[in-house]
Order: sequence, then C-alpha cells, then structure tokens
Amino acid sequence: MSGAIPERAVELLGEVRRRRPRIHCLMNSVVPKFVADGLSALGAIPSMTSSPEEVGHFVAKADALLVNLGTLDAQRREAIGIAVDVADEKGRPWALDPAHCDYSPPRAAFAQELLARGPAVLRANAAEYDLLAVPADVVAVRTGKADRIAWNGAVLHVENGHPLTALVTGTGCLSGAVIAAFLAVEADPFLAASAAMLVFGIAAEMAGKTATGPGSFEPALLDALASLEGTHILQFAKADNEQG
Amino acid sequence: MSGAIPERAVELLGEVRRRRPRIHCLMNSVVPKFVADGLSALGAIPSMTSSPEEVGHFVAKADALLVNLGTLDAQRREAIGIAVDVADEKGRPWALDPAHCDYSPPRAAFAQELLARGPAVLRANAAEYDLLAVPADVVAVRTGKADRIAWNGAVLHVENGHPLTALVTGTGCLSGAVIAAFLAVEADPFLAASAAMLVFGIAAEMAGKTATGPGSFEPALLDALASLEGTHILQFAKADNEQG
Amino acid sequence: MSGAIPERAVELLGEVRRRRPRIHCLMNSVVPKFVADGLSALGAIPSMTSSPEEVGHFVAKADALLVNLGTLDAQRREAIGIAVDVADEKGRPWALDPAHCDYSPPRAAFAQELLARGPAVLRANAAEYDLLAVPADVVAVRTGKADRIAWNGAVLHVENGHPLTALVTGTGCLSGAVIAAFLAVEADPFLAASAAMLVFGIAAEMAGKTATGPGSFEPALLDALASLEGTHILQFAKADNEQG
Repeated sequence: MSGAIPERAVELLGEVRRRRPRIHCLMNSVVPKFVADGLSALGAIPSMTSSPEEVGHFVAKADALLVNLGTLDAQRREAIGIAVDVADEKGRPWALDPAHCDYSPPRAAFAQELLARGPAVLRANAAEYDLLAVPADVVAVRTGKADRIAWNGAVLHVENGHPLTALVTGTGCLSGAVIAAFLAVEADPFLAASAAMLVFGIAAEMAGKTATGPGSFEPALLDALASLEGTHILQFAKADNEQG
Repeated sequence: MSGAIPERAVELLGEVRRRRPRIHCLMNSVVPKFVADGLSALGAIPSMTSSPEEVGHFVAKADALLVNLGTLDAQRREAIGIAVDVADEKGRPWALDPAHCDYSPPRAAFAQELLARGPAVLRANAAEYDLLAVPADVVAVRTGKADRIAWNGAVLHVENGHPLTALVTGTGCLSGAVIAAFLAVEADPFLAASAAMLVFGIAAEMAGKTATGPGSFEPALLDALASLEGTHILQFAKADNEQG
Repeated sequence: MSGAIPERAVELLGEVRRRRPRIHCLMNSVVPKFVADGLSALGAIPSMTSSPEEVGHFVAKADALLVNLGTLDAQRREAIGIAVDVADEKGRPWALDPAHCDYSPPRAAFAQELLARGPAVLRANAAEYDLLAVPADVVAVRTGKADRIAWNGAVLHVENGHPLTALVTGTGCLSGAVIAAFLAVEADPFLAASAAMLVFGIAAEMAGKTATGPGSFEPALLDALASLEGTHILQFAKADNEQG
C-alpha cells in the first residue's frame, strides 16, 4: 500500500485545491494567523472563531473541524463542546490536537475525554501521545523526526520533514490543520492523514532548501505549500509500511 | 475628480508619515501583530488593547479608531461600546470592519447596530457588504478584485491590487486599519478612504513583483507599505469614477 | 567590567543553546508567536499559556518566567498572580515588562505592585520607565536608541541595535523574553540582562544588513538570533560603563 500513498496524496492535494474546503479551527491564541495562512496556501479556506456564541454557526458552514487544545479555559472548553456537537450533527470529520497536554494534567484529562467523542484523527507529538489512550477507531498520528500514522493494524512511517520545523512555533498545529483539510476531501481517515503528513513533510523539505534560518523558513514553508506539485510528491516521498 | 485622487493620495500618505497618527484597533485575535506591523510600516503608531478596563484610556490617546468584529464575545462587545463612546466624545473618526459577519447572524446584527452609531467608513468584502444596509452618511467601501468606494452619490473604483492578497489572512483587516490611518489626517472620509485603498492596492502590486508565494508576499507587502513613494502612486494608480 | 561583558555574553549565549531553558511567558495577545519564535531561534524552549487553570503547571516546568502586561484584564491579573507565586515557590527568576503602561493608569499601578513582588529585572521603554519607581534590588533596563542597564550603582550602556526594530511590533517584548532566557542560565541578574541586550542588539544590527524594510527585518532578526556567533559579539559589541 505504501507504493500507492504518494499517488493518492497527489490526487488528494488536487482535490483540496479544486474544492477549496472550509476548515474551522479551534486554534490556540498563539498561532492562529500562521495556521490560517498555511491552510490558505494549501488551497483551503480557514476560519478561526472560538467564541461560544458564534462557533456553531462557523462549524455549520465548514467541511471539517480542527480542535487544538493549545489555549484552554472555561470559555474555550464550552466552545469546543459546541463545535464537536455541530460537527457530529452535520456529519463533518474532525481532528484533535492535544497541544502541550504534557505540561498540564487538566489538559491531558480533557484530551482523553475528547478522544471518546470520536475524532477521525488524533495528531500529537511523542510526549503528548504517550499520555493518551487512543481508541482503536481513531487514526493515531504521532509526529516527530519521523511521523507514524496508525489505524486498524495498518502503520505508515513518513520520514519527510526538516529540522527547522521544530524551531517555528505552530508548525505542529499547522500539520493538524492540514490533516483536517485532507479529511474534508477524503472519507478514509488513514489515507487523509497519510497524505497530509506527506504533503506537509515534503513542503518542509522544499522550504529548508531556501531558508537561511528559522525566520526565513516560515514564509518559505507557506510558499512551498502553495507551489508544491504532484511531481515533487512522487519524487521525494519517503513513506513506508511498518514491518509487523 | 478621479484625476485628483492619486495626487491627493500622495499628499495624504506624506501627512501620515509626518504626523504619525496613533490608531487604536479593536482587532480580532487572529491578526493583531500583522495589522500593527502594517500600520507601523505605513508610518502610523498602532495600539491594540481590547480589555474593557483599559480600552477607553487607549482610545482617548488615539487619533482614529478601527473597530474590527473578527473576534466577538460579551467582553469584546462591551469594549467596542466603550471605545465608540470615547471616540464620539473626543470627536475622533472611526472605521468599521464587520469581518466574517456573513458567517454569523449575531455578528451581522451587531454590525448593523454599529452602523447606526456613525462610523466614518465601513469596509467590507462583497459577502459581508450585501448583508448590511449602509446609512447614506457612511462612506461604503466594498473590497474585492476591484474596490468600490461610495458616498453621497460619488463612486470611485480602484483596480489596484494583487491576487496573493487573498491568500494572506488579515490583509482585509489591514486595509481597514489603513483607512483609519488616513481618516486621522483627512477630514473628508471619502477622500481618506479612496487614498487608503489606492495606497494599499499599489503596495500589494509592488509586493507581488518580488514575492514567490503567499509566505514571501506578507513581508514584501510590509516592505512596500514602508517604501512606497509618491511617484509610484502617480504612475500605477488605476482609479476611475463610476459612470452614472 | 564593561570589557568583560561581551566575553561573558558569548559564554552565556553558549549556555542558553546548550541547556535549552524553558521560558514561560505571560505574553500579550498581539505577539505571542513572534516572541516564541524568537526564544526558539535563540535556543530556548518557549511556552505561552495564560489561563489561570493551567499557568501554575507551566511555570512549575519552566526555568524562568516573563510577565508582560501588554494584555490585561481580570483573568490575566489572576494568572500573573499565580505565575509569580509558583516562580517564588520554585525559586525561578522572573522579568517584568510593563508594556504600554504609559497608556493606561490601571496598568501602571499594577506594574508598580508587581515591582514590589521582586522581579529580577524590569525592562521598559523610556515612557514606561519614567512612570515607575524601581526598587534598588531590581535590575532596571531602559530600552531605546541606546539601552541602559542599572543595578546597585553599576550602569551599562549598550548602543547596539537597528532603527527598523522600532517598526516591528513585539521586538521590545521579545527583548524581555531574551532577558528571561539569560536569567535562566546566569544567577547575576545584571550580567544576564546585559548579555541579553547585547545579543539582541547585535542580532538586530545583523538583520538590518539584509532587510529591505520592516517586513523582511522580522524573519532576518529571527535568523540572526539563530546564527549569531561569539565572534560577532566580540567584534560588534558597543557596551560602556556610565561614568559617574
């Protein structure tokens, strides 16, 4: 199957750019513009509101939802509850990013509760991932030097990426948003998450070729997400099934 | 009159840079830094606080106010009310940007209420604009591929701009802030809004010449706002009166 | 002593990069990503949460704390109180940045209260600085065209820097975060603050050499913080003791 993943990623990236799905993000307060810009560069249409009064209206208009826990207080918890309710009601897929839950026990507990509400995909780094029990029906994406995507016994490793990614705040959050964009155009969440990580990792590699540091890496990453072509994916993809 | 608009825009840009007006922005939580950086690049001095306890003190020190609805909850509504009260009391002009009110009925209703409070200028994209009834005494700016500025029967079309603008979150919000900066130095709100849209559109065209995608377009736009000269405005302006 | 400051700054920058201290920032809502990216570029690990429910957990994991007053409401005041309590309890140094307290009397009053709680360093621009009575045991950093660092009768002037710094929102806030990063690796707060201002000013000068305006200055500053070498510090430092 790994041979087919890059080809499917090429098709799905084309779908994102053709359909321009609306992605609503319950994003933390640190990186909302960067994540919105990344989604726009990819070809999707972002919205970022998190006020409880309005979030339901925004999610109702969206094709997929991202719930990022990077900012968490009583109002944000309420907004997340409403957003997931509306996504369920409308049959929209959603992804969960338990950002920084390794720093805060209440956040880890809330992430565990949300996993029971049925996101299509969880995206987490190793420290966050290790704290959570991921239900079998949720695609589990663990990001790091290599990314691991697991579901129903299938496991894919994606080794694309660039070390400067770790020095730009919000790149992990943006990768979660890219997963949500692919969920909006592909019903198989394992395939959507795999294609997203491949596209994101290859864009990072392309950005790393022109960047002279973490500052110039950020605009270069956005440019790469916008200019990435199918031939780049087929040429650079490093995706392998885990050997059982 | 359209022949005179570019010449007046040159003068007014000079005024902004000379006087360095303070512009207080009730900005959404997504793009505050980008809007502040855009105002600084233009030559104005931004402030962005939106806590109800403090916003009155900030508006009292400002030369013009921008009210952007991109983030809206009970506290923000309260802060907006205080800010408009202080602007009225001090005789400071203000601009209204009903960002994303097409996504949220409560936001559209609040925008309509605010229009009755007498902003000098409304700036909205087509989807937002179509939902609102703009009073005759408010300059109505509808932005898009071309921008339309209307007041008291006079209508100007500005066709400067660049397609990458649409891929950078906050460029519309920044254009509203640029309008506020011109309102601070020019009492005729139609002229102020027209000059602002011309300056913003020409800066975007200049940025588009060096950018290699939406990521590099953003710093290039800020650089262009800072380096734009009168000769660029006179050379590149595409502003025409609407034929009745 | 001024002769030794650049040499010590070289050593301390190496310490930051080796130890990668965690710096928790109670940052305003305008520039959190920029400050986080600046800390990452320098070699530190940023976190930015300000919800009262969680901030204690984050500060407990941090090596130093920055309290920036740029956003201030009831919830933020509560979070700041908790953060300073935890920093005291754990013996972690903290820096205070009374951003924009010259605009808002309640903010100036709160800044004065916080000074009594014993930050290691205060960083303020001239307008903010002049409103506050800095206790003798707090290192007082006044930033501007030249930076002045004063403690216990010792006064250092740092003249490194670049004029574009003033056009990028958040550069002052980032300099406060850089001070916190140096406090995490150096027990003498005067030395930590001096080294931080020297490193920040020289990075700004390096960025100014490649930037073509305020937009390109920002990524260039982050690149410079990441690539700055000891030889640059020794070559470019302009630090002098004040003559009594």
